[in-house]
Amino acid sequence: MVSRIAGSRGIPQDPKTMTTRPCAGALALLLALIPLKLISAEKAAAGLIRVAAAQAQGRVIDYRLGAAEALAAVDRNLSALESIVDRAGEAGSDVLVLPEDTPGLLNWVGANEERLKEVLPEAVGRMKRQLGTAAARHRMYLVVCSDFIEADGGVYNTSFLLGRDGREIGRYHKVCPTWGEAGARRRGRSFPVFPTTDLGLAGMLICYDLVMPETARALALKGADIIFFPTMGGAAIGEGDIGEQALRVRAVENFIWLVVAQRGSGAMIISPQGRIIARAEGRDGLAMADIDLHGQREGGDSMNWQRDMRARIFRERNPEAFEVLTDTNAPILAKVPIAQTSEEAGKIMARALTVGEEEFRRADALAAAGETGKAIAAFERLQREYPGTWIDRRAQERVERLRGETTR
Amino acid sequence: MVSRIAGSRGIPQDPKTMTTRPCAGALALLLALIPLKLISAEKAAAGLIRVAAAQAQGRVIDYRLGAAEALAAVDRNLSALESIVDRAGEAGSDVLVLPEDTPGLLNWVGANEERLKEVLPEAVGRMKRQLGTAAARHRMYLVVCSDFIEADGGVYNTSFLLGRDGREIGRYHKVCPTWGEAGARRRGRSFPVFPTTDLGLAGMLICYDLVMPETARALALKGADIIFFPTMGGAAIGEGDIGEQALRVRAVENFIWLVVAQRGSGAMIISPQGRIIARAEGRDGLAMADIDLHGQREGGDSMNWQRDMRARIFRERNPEAFEVLTDTNAPILAKVPIAQTSEEAGKIMARALTVGEEEFRRADALAAAGETGKAIAAFERLQREYPGTWIDRRAQERVERLRGETTR
Repeated sequence: MVSRIAGSRGIPQDPKTMTTRPCAGALALLLALIPLKLISAEKAAAGLIRVAAAQAQGRVIDYRLGAAEALAAVDRNLSALESIVDRAGEAGSDVLVLPEDTPGLLNWVGANEERLKEVLPEAVGRMKRQLGTAAARHRMYLVVCSDFIEADGGVYNTSFLLGRDGREIGRYHKVCPTWGEAGARRRGRSFPVFPTTDLGLAGMLICYDLVMPETARALALKGADIIFFPTMGGAAIGEGDIGEQALRVRAVENFIWLVVAQRGSGAMIISPQGRIIARAEGRDGLAMADIDLHGQREGGDSMNWQRDMRARIFRERNPEAFEVLTDTNAPILAKVPIAQTSEEAGKIMARALTVGEEEFRRADALAAAGETGKAIAAFERLQREYPGTWIDRRAQERVERLRGETTR
Repeated sequence: MVSRIAGSRGIPQDPKTMTTRPCAGALALLLALIPLKLISAEKAAAGLIRVAAAQAQGRVIDYRLGAAEALAAVDRNLSALESIVDRAGEAGSDVLVLPEDTPGLLNWVGANEERLKEVLPEAVGRMKRQLGTAAARHRMYLVVCSDFIEADGGVYNTSFLLGRDGREIGRYHKVCPTWGEAGARRRGRSFPVFPTTDLGLAGMLICYDLVMPETARALALKGADIIFFPTMGGAAIGEGDIGEQALRVRAVENFIWLVVAQRGSGAMIISPQGRIIARAEGRDGLAMADIDLHGQREGGDSMNWQRDMRARIFRERNPEAFEVLTDTNAPILAKVPIAQTSEEAGKIMARALTVGEEEFRRADALAAAGETGKAIAAFERLQREYPGTWIDRRAQERVERLRGETTR
């Protein structure tokens, strides 16, 4: 039995929300900042914190570059990202989250497995130093994210929480990478939470993690008040709005704040009620909101209402009945076998992200030149080499069309 | 990293969907049945099954009735429900799910704890016999739900899956009742799945269970293809559409079919893609759809597409990192204490569902008669007796208003 929340006693006003986009000129910037600074003073008096999430556009580094050139490209990306950090800082943000793959090395990493040591440690060091220094100028926390080589020699998709002084408070290794992604990386083994003086107990997750309800749940069970979430996608595999709805559900099912920094578009801030209270707009736009880390958790039903609904839901869980959740060989695995190992899927993914696109274009050129037989053979080879990828599916369509033309 | 599904190769057509509402007369019924019967023949040829979920209205039995009178009221409810069963059967359904608290005894149970043995075993027996016999006339599976006294003497909120012959295949005890509900009941300890010849591997959940992502996940990990879900609410505590969005997310995060029989309104059928493919309309309406239990599970991203996405997501989970999910004393519990024990909340809930409403009305009558001092005292007593309930919140509003009037 469960009824909708029946009253609103004690529910505070919606937090102040705003969206900003890059201003065209200095005057516009100045005018835009005046009200934000005023709100900033109000905010501090009310004990609120201003959170920001950037939908920084993809700044994909060419996988064909050598190590030195790749690092130079990272520097160019960091300069562009630094201006986003400054914009968030000038708007009075207390914390800014940047998207997954902040420096833009994902494709390069896929194609240069043997040269990662020449680039990743240096690139991540520069990212933390340059963007951390910029954030520290504004006394602002910062979350950045990149593939990284850890002391154990493994590559992990890693997010870093930097403090108001620009120094690292802690890091998180993605626990649930995709099947292909996990082929060339190690998976994180824990969900750390980080006590802060003014952001509550903070946790981080990365992209595909949130497709799994277990990840946000683990952070919430460890007491996290807020999740910083660098990502390239929503929280569900599917079409339409389901990825965004799943983000809302991750927040409300744990009564937790969720700060979504999605690449390109879709940055947003979601309250513990599952409400999207701020969205970013435009290129490199910021979603911003002033939030009360201890608020927005009222809830219940007509029979039992709580000021902090976490007091109920985490007692209404019944972990004695949940053993199958930690079973490493749950019955479903035997029922739904998988064709490729994670390593195979990873190799295919790395090539599909890089050389695959060029090979596909060459096959397309054969078809355009009327070399139908050769084109069919090329597409069929692509299907064998890139099974399960977009290349496989598109090549299949091309083959069907070309065969249709030849038999007409 | 996760991309949206990029292609649609091999994704079958949407399943045929329909909604029906009670027909006014026999002619209308006959006309309505002709196309359904035709579709029914098509359906069988295509290997589909027709699932139905009823939004049977609340048929609440008066808590003041004696045992014999309560059983007579159950009989009246069963007669009304039998006509819903017949309607679903005549429409060619293979399975029908009825809402939580099918016989309508919830309030009576709350107020008559010492007399449950006189009523519950007999009421549940009659429900299974009468509705099971009706369903068997149509060779239709049936799911019903009620509080029930088990052999161990405990009261469990229980759902029953009856086969095409009307006999019980298996039962499920609600694992996650609400805090108050659990005060007077025992909690289920497992998530059974039931192999069937033509419904796949079936599981059941009840109402508040689905507020917890762990419940549907446990069934999916055990290999369930479909969840039958008798309920009185959605899958999240919150306002607006979040309860319904959470139902969609429960389906898609497990790539599982979800059949929602919600009391009064909101019965629906949700595909493993998280799409609502059928909704019920009107009083006692049915949501119906012809579904392929093995279909609608295509998914993935541009790098790795699967015909049954369960093959990926249940390998992308990382159960080694999930220990906190089965910790019976997770850190969050110390952080968010609760004021009432489950037993206290249960007693308050039972009284609020029954005598509380009358007491509230009497206090209101005092206020209407101008006896402001007495009314304030009565509302304040109600606040003390029903803390956290709708009575507490409304009484608080009344007290504030009455005090405002006296000080003007």
